[in-house]
Amino acid sequence: MKIDGKPYRTILPAGDGASVAVIDQTRLPFAFELRTLASLDDAAVAIRTMVVRGAPLIGVTAAYGLALGLRADASEAGLDRAVATLAATRPTAINLRWALDRVAAKLRTVPEAERAAFAYAEAGRIAEEDVESCHAIGVHGARILSDLHRAKGRPINVLTHCNAGWLATVDWGTALAPIYVAHDAGVPVHVFVDETRPRNQGAALTAFELNAHGVPHTVIADNAGGHLMQHGAIDVCIVGSDRTTASGDVCNKIGTYLKALAASDNRVPFYAALPFSTIDWSLDDGVAEIPIEERDGREVTHLTGRLADGGFATIEVVSPGSPVANPAFDVTPARLVTGIITERGVASADVEGLLSLYPERRKAA
Amino acid sequence: MKIDGKPYRTILPAGDGASVAVIDQTRLPFAFELRTLASLDDAAVAIRTMVVRGAPLIGVTAAYGLALGLRADASEAGLDRAVATLAATRPTAINLRWALDRVAAKLRTVPEAERAAFAYAEAGRIAEEDVESCHAIGVHGARILSDLHRAKGRPINVLTHCNAGWLATVDWGTALAPIYVAHDAGVPVHVFVDETRPRNQGAALTAFELNAHGVPHTVIADNAGGHLMQHGAIDVCIVGSDRTTASGDVCNKIGTYLKALAASDNRVPFYAALPFSTIDWSLDDGVAEIPIEERDGREVTHLTGRLADGGFATIEVVSPGSPVANPAFDVTPARLVTGIITERGVASADVEGLLSLYPERRKAA
Repeated sequence: MKIDGKPYRTILPAGDGASVAVIDQTRLPFAFELRTLASLDDAAVAIRTMVVRGAPLIGVTAAYGLALGLRADASEAGLDRAVATLAATRPTAINLRWALDRVAAKLRTVPEAERAAFAYAEAGRIAEEDVESCHAIGVHGARILSDLHRAKGRPINVLTHCNAGWLATVDWGTALAPIYVAHDAGVPVHVFVDETRPRNQGAALTAFELNAHGVPHTVIADNAGGHLMQHGAIDVCIVGSDRTTASGDVCNKIGTYLKALAASDNRVPFYAALPFSTIDWSLDDGVAEIPIEERDGREVTHLTGRLADGGFATIEVVSPGSPVANPAFDVTPARLVTGIITERGVASADVEGLLSLYPERRKAA
Repeated sequence: MKIDGKPYRTILPAGDGASVAVIDQTRLPFAFELRTLASLDDAAVAIRTMVVRGAPLIGVTAAYGLALGLRADASEAGLDRAVATLAATRPTAINLRWALDRVAAKLRTVPEAERAAFAYAEAGRIAEEDVESCHAIGVHGARILSDLHRAKGRPINVLTHCNAGWLATVDWGTALAPIYVAHDAGVPVHVFVDETRPRNQGAALTAFELNAHGVPHTVIADNAGGHLMQHGAIDVCIVGSDRTTASGDVCNKIGTYLKALAASDNRVPFYAALPFSTIDWSLDDGVAEIPIEERDGREVTHLTGRLADGGFATIEVVSPGSPVANPAFDVTPARLVTGIITERGVASADVEGLLSLYPERRKAA
């Protein structure tokens, strides 16, 4: 998507196949800086420290990291070590493992001398497929927004939680893709952006994205969405997903469930937008079966931001000595989800709905 | 309640009747400082800048402010000016107007020479009544907690939102009073404290209170409560109220409604604790009728906290250029409220329930 009118992607391969550039997301929204990854370690550190984040983008970065590692050591041992190093960076990210498995499996039959170049090209194919998949999600989801606009005859207000935008993917995003496609097609859309505590991905990343691309939006505290829905200020909610059960339960950033409850209580449609790779066909009951990552309490007790003089500082905001809990995700039961938007279309959030989009899974069952 | 074992109140009259000391709540949780109010202006500034906050405490501070103003000018004009100055500090706080009206009405028949001393004594009576009222709320609410403890045979987990503790009143608090009474009586209680964005009164004030008094607690992001309820980690919710309709709708800090929805969805009892003075008997439909204050967006975009070196800093955390909305309250419909705890007992959240506690209102209707 665009920043100041110029199109960008989150990850940019160098022509020589020896490096890749990424947007440093730890510096957003206050600084826009590219960082060059030229080695396996560069890629691993970028994923671990969240220079890049978002399941699809992590997968693509890991694939490029494998290629960079093979330039130094293309042996079987080198390949194994590169996969292990990258897989350990974010052990719960589904796409990370998926991308590594895909590239590594193909590499086993490739001569050592050609492995680095093959992996680099395969990483590029994964990136292109991600762009196509996200754009397709955008096209399917944009129909929901244009239908709402046609029915209501005024700009459509969307609420989103966290960042499932182009910064979380290679381009377009998942939850934000329908918004970008609709906006670019002239459908008037305004987005309420949940701040998204802790880590503030909404206030820092989603707001940055929308502002840079020129999509009208308003940042709100996570607490405000229910009140806005009670007063008719939200027409539709669209969120992303980190894991989706075969039955349509949606695991996403903590707090998503609360917005789904408010949407249900106020008859606001609630959609999750996600690529096929986030569907875990082995799971039925998301609340019972999906393990929820407990992250460092410092994400709650401390915040980093910009000082009035342009410098940066980290401050403590919780009463010292008070214990903190920090579950990172919650599960929204399928009964609260109006529909699931994937690269193949929009389905009801249940077994039959998802199987209707992925009939090949019916045979596999 | 206690800080390091020593009992405190939020407002402490001086023996000479010439001043009053308050805890400076803008310095909490990182510094505990008393501030002396010796004039009408001192009191007005303390209320306006939120050195003191919480509806009951604002009312008491305003009453003392009236007494301090009358020491300088006890004429009718001086009284009118003092009332106008204090009433303008926080125009939406119900208790502020109620306390001023009560003291001023009595003062009209008091000779000028005696007015300052009379007002000072009347402010003290309002403070004592607030302590009694909050303690009675605590006794009634503690029964709910001890019953839950008896039924479950383990420590009881309470979720609360914002700060409706002793810092919001003269002592005991409203939502926290049942917790203090139960804790002091040996009932094992653990409190999940919502951070409460924006302004973070949970992380800053509720956590400070509970820590200082020795009540076990855990601070969480506002987004986390629904997930905890899904997993059985919350036994009961207790919140305060800034205004309550005759039909039992509860207007409280923004985000309260989302927790009530999650409580309802997970069959967790949800109570509001409040003194009679927050019931607005003229209102029936809280969502439609209660005006919601829109506060400065800077409360969302900026946070102040402690640096690693012990100094303080204010940082910006929202992407620059992004608009912000900041509604300060929301309304929880009575259908989501299990019961209302007042100084007279616990009632169902409906017209008949509230009238059963306040039968004198039935005649007035």
